[in-house]
Amino acid sequence: MKNFEAFLQDHLPVSKSIHPTYEKALHEMLLAGGKRFRPALLLGVVDAYNPLMLEGARYAAYAIELLHTYSLIHDDLPAMDDSPLRRGKPTLHMVYDEVTAILVGDALNTYAFEVLSTAPFSDRVRVKLIYELASNGGLNGMVLGQAIDCYFENKPLAIEDIKTLHTNKTAKLIAASLKMGAIIVGEEEVAQKLYDFGIKLGLLFQIQDDILDVTLSSQEAGKLTNNDEDKNSFVTILGLEVSMQEANQLAQELIEEMEHFDEKLKNTLSELLLRYIQRHNKG
Amino acid sequence: MKNFEAFLQDHLPVSKSIHPTYEKALHEMLLAGGKRFRPALLLGVVDAYNPLMLEGARYAAYAIELLHTYSLIHDDLPAMDDSPLRRGKPTLHMVYDEVTAILVGDALNTYAFEVLSTAPFSDRVRVKLIYELASNGGLNGMVLGQAIDCYFENKPLAIEDIKTLHTNKTAKLIAASLKMGAIIVGEEEVAQKLYDFGIKLGLLFQIQDDILDVTLSSQEAGKLTNNDEDKNSFVTILGLEVSMQEANQLAQELIEEMEHFDEKLKNTLSELLLRYIQRHNKG
Repeated sequence: MKNFEAFLQDHLPVSKSIHPTYEKALHEMLLAGGKRFRPALLLGVVDAYNPLMLEGARYAAYAIELLHTYSLIHDDLPAMDDSPLRRGKPTLHMVYDEVTAILVGDALNTYAFEVLSTAPFSDRVRVKLIYELASNGGLNGMVLGQAIDCYFENKPLAIEDIKTLHTNKTAKLIAASLKMGAIIVGEEEVAQKLYDFGIKLGLLFQIQDDILDVTLSSQEAGKLTNNDEDKNSFVTILGLEVSMQEANQLAQELIEEMEHFDEKLKNTLSELLLRYIQRHNKG
Repeated sequence: MKNFEAFLQDHLPVSKSIHPTYEKALHEMLLAGGKRFRPALLLGVVDAYNPLMLEGARYAAYAIELLHTYSLIHDDLPAMDDSPLRRGKPTLHMVYDEVTAILVGDALNTYAFEVLSTAPFSDRVRVKLIYELASNGGLNGMVLGQAIDCYFENKPLAIEDIKTLHTNKTAKLIAASLKMGAIIVGEEEVAQKLYDFGIKLGLLFQIQDDILDVTLSSQEAGKLTNNDEDKNSFVTILGLEVSMQEANQLAQELIEEMEHFDEKLKNTLSELLLRYIQRHNKG
C-alpha cells in the first residue's frame, strides 16, 4: 500500500481559509495511519484484472477511505463511543474539539462523492461507484449499523440481530470496496459474487476485532480496549470460544468461495486474507 | 411547492430495521416543514426553460433538501449552536438524543448522493449535479462556512471575512441550486451566471436572516432568536442600519443582473425574489 499512501499524500484536500486549523485537522485524520484495508481490497481486485487501471482506481480507493475515516471520527465522538484514542493517537475531538470533529467528519463524507465525481472514469462508471459507496455507506448501510449499535448498547441482541448490526456497520463497506474494484475493471458478473464474499469477509473482520478487543492490551491495539463491555459484540453474545469457532467457520467458507474466482483474483484475495488474519489492530 | 411536498412524501427514505425510531426520525426531519427555498430555486430554473423536465428535476431538488436538512440537524447540536427549537418544533437531539441527531444527519448527507446517482438523468448530468452539490455543500463550501462560524464565535470578524463565512455557509448551496437547475435543462452558458447571481442572493438571504433574528420575537420566527449574540452576524458587525442598507444594495444589484436573463427566467426569479423578501422565517 505504499503507492496508495503516496497518492493520499499528493491528493489531500486543500482548504486554505481564515480558519487556522480546519485543513490541518482534515489532513491529520487522513494521515493517521490506518491499515488502508478497504483501499487494498479495491486495488487488489483491479490489480488482478487490469493493473494498468490501478492509477485511476486509487481515486475510488481514496473515496472509500474518506468515507471510512469520517465514520471513525464520528464514532469516537463523546455522544457515541466517547473514545480518547484511535490508532494509538488522541482522537480528533480530544486534539481539537467536538465541533471540529463533527465538521471534519461531515466534510470528508461529502468530499468522498466529490472525488468520485471527478475521478478518471467514464460517467457511467462514476455513477455506478457513487451509487455503491452511497448505498452501502449510508442510511441503509454503515450509518444504520452504527445507529443499531448505539441504540442497543446495554440491551443484548439475538445472534441474528448482531449479524444485521455488523453486516451494516462493517461488512457492507468492505463488500462495496470489492465490488467497486470489479466495476472499475468492467467485470460486472464477478461484482455481485465479490460483494457477497465481502459481506462474509466483513463479518469475519468484525468477529476477529471483537476477539482482539478482549485478548489484546490497549497498548498493542493502539486504542482503548475492553471499552466495549456494554456494546453488543460477538464475544459478549456468543462468548470467546464460540466466537472463535464462528470466525474459523467463516474463514473456511471464504476459502471455499474463493475457488470459484479466477486464478489471479484468487491469489490476490488469498494474500489479502492472510494479511488480514495476521493483522493485530483495526485499520 | 405543493408538488414538491407531495414528491417528498412519496420518496421518503425507507429504512425498516430493528432500530425502532431511526426511520421515524429521518422522516420527521424531512417533513418538518421548511420553506423549501433551495428546491424552489432549482425547480424555478427548470420550469423557466423546460417544464416537461420538472418531474425528473424534483429528484435533484430533493437531494439539495436532504443536504440542507442534514446541515440544520448538525448545526443545532449541543456542541454547535445548541438550539432547542427549529421551525417551531423541538430539534432532533431534543426529541431523541445526540446520537440520533448525528447519525440521521450523516445518513441524509450520504443519501443526497445516492438519490442523485439514480435520478432520471443521463450519467453525464448525474455526475455534473453530484459535483456541484458536493463541491458547494462540503469541505470548501457549506461545511467550511459552519467551521468558520463556530471557530470565530466571540472573535469579531472583519467585514470581508464575514462575507467569506456566509458565502460558504449559506450562499454556495443557494448558488448551486440555481446552477443545478440550468445543468438539468442543458443551459450550460447560463449556469455560471446563475451561480454568481445565487452567491449574491445567498448573502442577501443571510443578511435578511440576521436582521430578522434581532427584530422578530421567537414565536414569530419559530426558533430561538437573539441566540446569536456571540456569533458573527452582519448585524453584530455592521449594525442594524448598515446591514439593512447592504441588503437593499444587494437586492438592487440582483434586480439589475436579472435584466440579462431570458424573459421567462427573469419572471421566475422575480417571483422567487418577491417570495423571499416576504418571507418571515428561515426555511
